[in-house]
Amino acid sequence: MKTMGLSRLYLVEPRQFPDPEADTRATGAVDLLQQATLTANLKEALAGTVFAVALSARQRDLGPVVGTPRETVARLLAAAAEGEVALVFGNETMGLSNEEVLHCQAAVTIPTNPEFSSLNLGSAVQVLCYECRMTAYAERPPVASQGATPFASPLATHDEIEGLYGHLEHVMTKTGFFNPAQPGRLMPKLRRLFGRIGMEKDEINILRGILASTQAPTAHGRKD
Amino acid sequence: MKTMGLSRLYLVEPRQFPDPEADTRATGAVDLLQQATLTANLKEALAGTVFAVALSARQRDLGPVVGTPRETVARLLAAAAEGEVALVFGNETMGLSNEEVLHCQAAVTIPTNPEFSSLNLGSAVQVLCYECRMTAYAERPPVASQGATPFASPLATHDEIEGLYGHLEHVMTKTGFFNPAQPGRLMPKLRRLFGRIGMEKDEINILRGILASTQAPTAHGRKD
Repeated sequence: MKTMGLSRLYLVEPRQFPDPEADTRATGAVDLLQQATLTANLKEALAGTVFAVALSARQRDLGPVVGTPRETVARLLAAAAEGEVALVFGNETMGLSNEEVLHCQAAVTIPTNPEFSSLNLGSAVQVLCYECRMTAYAERPPVASQGATPFASPLATHDEIEGLYGHLEHVMTKTGFFNPAQPGRLMPKLRRLFGRIGMEKDEINILRGILASTQAPTAHGRKD
Repeated sequence: MKTMGLSRLYLVEPRQFPDPEADTRATGAVDLLQQATLTANLKEALAGTVFAVALSARQRDLGPVVGTPRETVARLLAAAAEGEVALVFGNETMGLSNEEVLHCQAAVTIPTNPEFSSLNLGSAVQVLCYECRMTAYAERPPVASQGATPFASPLATHDEIEGLYGHLEHVMTKTGFFNPAQPGRLMPKLRRLFGRIGMEKDEINILRGILASTQAPTAHGRKD
């Protein structure tokens, strides 16, 4: 990532950090490793981002539709004009869980030989960082910004979107629509729905306002 | 190179071959290593090619003008319609000599961070092979179909979407969140939000189920 001009590395729950072997392997990029931000989980790492792309070797049941590196990086850089963005990678062995992919607004698959598709993690990171650099320095194709209409507000951040999910879950639990003991696939389906909108701050506020109003006392009398 | 669908490896004067360490590192691609063609020099390796591209970290005095990976790979694949072509890499430590570069018709530099440009050989090979695959398939290479089809139900129809807006308006009016006498821009904002999702039938059903549940009798007692 350093060769391609990227510098902000977040490590989610690393097995060991600092790790002398990692330092050795980083050679000239050890500064970047030493400045890495450690977080306890992916949610914490993505707090504040407006667009996150998950690397996924395959299409997931409920995940966002996977794009090619080139088209997905173009979307990523367009979103970077509005706030922080992230490329999200799983570890070498396991990749990302379905739950982790659903924290992201888009997914990307690097097209590989179907008969030998096991790109290692370092190679995948290299390819995507390379696409970032190529796209960033080429003539930026005019991507229709989703915020270009009259009442656009800034894109919502990851934690604001998580706040909406939490609020939804709370209200649905209270009304009995959602049973936390038997969650099924309701929350993943709602994440899939709202995840692909590219929601704005104002929109989150409206939706949370509606949710709150269904639980609040009204002129017609108290609820519950 | 195997992950990107390339298979013909030529090794010029390798220090050791076969090499147990190389076999170990090749993991699933050891077949390709075992079938490599050995030559005594670059000239012999390039015999019969109509176009050869040298990877070069810099412009050489007498070398061909260096291009970007994308434009150079496009030339390479165009030439492949006329005969055999080659990508030529130096070793990890020394790269290619000026003389070796002059055996090639074109040179390519991978654009890197000027402050940290030391891309290792494996990464450089990965990037160029990836560009070959992307270009060969006109940027839409077939992706291994090992994954699930993305979860999707048929798209909602216009009247189903209108049904959702009507339901939303009804509930918001009941809770007092929306005042039909002073509608403001609330409904247009909600239309803008849900209108750009491309909602599916199942998703409409989920959202209307949530709305209905906020107005229905629950275990906690009747609403309103």
